[in-house]
Amino acid sequence: MNTTKPTLPTPDDAALWYEDRLYLADQRVLPERAEFLSYQQAPEVAEAIRAMVVRGAPAIGVTAAYGVVLAGRAAHATAGVGWKTAIEADLERLAASRPTAVNLFWAIRRMRALIERLDTTDPTPALLREALAIHEEDRAANHRMGDLGAELIEGPTDIVTHCNAGAIATGGYGTALGVVRSAFAAGKIRRVYADETRPWMQGARLTAWELMHDGIPVTLQADGAAASLMAGGSVGWVIVGSDRIAANGDVANKIGTYGLAVLARYHGIKVMVAAPTSTVDMEVASGAEIPIEERDSDELLSCGGRRLAPAGCVARNPVFDVTPAALVDAIVTERGVVLNPTTEKMRALMDSSMGER
Amino acid sequence: MNTTKPTLPTPDDAALWYEDRLYLADQRVLPERAEFLSYQQAPEVAEAIRAMVVRGAPAIGVTAAYGVVLAGRAAHATAGVGWKTAIEADLERLAASRPTAVNLFWAIRRMRALIERLDTTDPTPALLREALAIHEEDRAANHRMGDLGAELIEGPTDIVTHCNAGAIATGGYGTALGVVRSAFAAGKIRRVYADETRPWMQGARLTAWELMHDGIPVTLQADGAAASLMAGGSVGWVIVGSDRIAANGDVANKIGTYGLAVLARYHGIKVMVAAPTSTVDMEVASGAEIPIEERDSDELLSCGGRRLAPAGCVARNPVFDVTPAALVDAIVTERGVVLNPTTEKMRALMDSSMGER
Repeated sequence: MNTTKPTLPTPDDAALWYEDRLYLADQRVLPERAEFLSYQQAPEVAEAIRAMVVRGAPAIGVTAAYGVVLAGRAAHATAGVGWKTAIEADLERLAASRPTAVNLFWAIRRMRALIERLDTTDPTPALLREALAIHEEDRAANHRMGDLGAELIEGPTDIVTHCNAGAIATGGYGTALGVVRSAFAAGKIRRVYADETRPWMQGARLTAWELMHDGIPVTLQADGAAASLMAGGSVGWVIVGSDRIAANGDVANKIGTYGLAVLARYHGIKVMVAAPTSTVDMEVASGAEIPIEERDSDELLSCGGRRLAPAGCVARNPVFDVTPAALVDAIVTERGVVLNPTTEKMRALMDSSMGER
Repeated sequence: MNTTKPTLPTPDDAALWYEDRLYLADQRVLPERAEFLSYQQAPEVAEAIRAMVVRGAPAIGVTAAYGVVLAGRAAHATAGVGWKTAIEADLERLAASRPTAVNLFWAIRRMRALIERLDTTDPTPALLREALAIHEEDRAANHRMGDLGAELIEGPTDIVTHCNAGAIATGGYGTALGVVRSAFAAGKIRRVYADETRPWMQGARLTAWELMHDGIPVTLQADGAAASLMAGGSVGWVIVGSDRIAANGDVANKIGTYGLAVLARYHGIKVMVAAPTSTVDMEVASGAEIPIEERDSDELLSCGGRRLAPAGCVARNPVFDVTPAALVDAIVTERGVVLNPTTEKMRALMDSSMGER
């Protein structure tokens, strides 16, 4: 919980609770503008997720948890002892905001489990404690993943990243960028080459911003430039986050990740996926079953707020793709590392008692 | 030679000579604005090439030839019988405009060969005839390549393109898009998926524009989205142009081509490079020796005219990469097709008497 009113977002500030409301850094406008938007109503939080004010799978989960707090407060204010029925509509709105990141559904399910156990009195304090715990656990998980992932890296080497799996994509510290931060502190990283990541430019706007903020050497590149960089021989690892990991270790992540994994394998470069266990979905057998969000083609026809393609141009805009487990060298979670993932290994990880929650 | 004053560029209008001057479609602003800029001085033409008013390797060659016409006219106007010495400075300016596309040097060398043979009288008419011949030959070569390339395609299938190797990149009809046009006319193409091609967006702005103009089904995609499309199984060929082909068949083309070729091979998709023999440089043994232009990082830090990355962000902006011959299934030139290129096969092609010039 914040002790002062949030005013200027830093990378750790994707979602903050202060006093009686939720603050989200507006990731649509970073880094040009660093601003918070504030929320007191769950439907607006659902829209903020849909519109990508907040993005990044773990940050979406944390945000949804805070959204449930607002939903509970409103439900009790309007329906009193009937709040558990009244809250349903907002829970569904939150769940419908975006289809791919499983952390969203994981967080809502956890909040629902708490709702089940509560009585008819004002649920707000209990819901808030749970949301704050989810936030803190996510941050702590990232620090743990940072250590585990850094151990895998033989340095010094160069890293390629894609999209933004940084502090601003999570409850703090970052998943992929958490590994980068930890490995850099251990002297294992020379430079990070960040794919700018079209169409939404999370790499250019968010990853570059975070790493420059932390003083970690970063060079931005066009997504198409990764291959020639890899051919140069200086890159040891591709490190990415994930929006959903299937039971067999297939990984859904930002569009372009799959191509990067193929290129990495071709060049003898390793691929590390850093994600908390809240990103693992054992109910989905393989990547083929992960829903891949398609967003409006306008996002592709334009760049920097300006339409570049001809009017009426047809475009495809799948915002995620699936990297088969066979192309993933390591999945790093807060519970432990899975090398060369298989269903058996993933099951062992998810059943393990380490870091049980 | 144009018979009416150029006013509104169509895809075939990269460079046009009308009356006493050169007209270039301003490719920096297409398709938002369709305008010609006109030139009467060679140094301005050199700057137009540098600034990418005109781009596309064959179009650069054609433009340079017209630039030599302007240089010759100015040299004779100022130095009279001493024009062959006076023209040198402009020839060097033209040659220094951009380093990678060998068609530029090929065209200047051909015009120099003519200059050698001319006397001290006004060279303008002779130079203009040669430039017009270079232009017409390029266009005719593209039609020939279109036929040869289309023959290789078993349709109906989907095609992936990168950058713009279309009419507007050449003297007309296009190299890669010439093959697309011919194959589409033969019913072999269902749809073209055009990589938007960051940082300069030739795919979004020029390829989409050309294909929509011609009624050929085109879907725009982020460069990172090609891999997931390929995994879907509908793509038969990647078809691209080239800025320079080495003696061993290594191909320099727009950044991102190499990655696409690796992905294509991984997915059992074939790679076709369509380029006239004026793009082949037998003096360069392999791709390692092709100069790869680096352009200002501003081009990468911005998109749509707006800076998206943080101020002071470091970026790498190599605008070409090299695809090894081993990843190229076919090089299609106006003299013939080379499958699975090697130095021996390339030498045989360049020594052949077919379409000798």
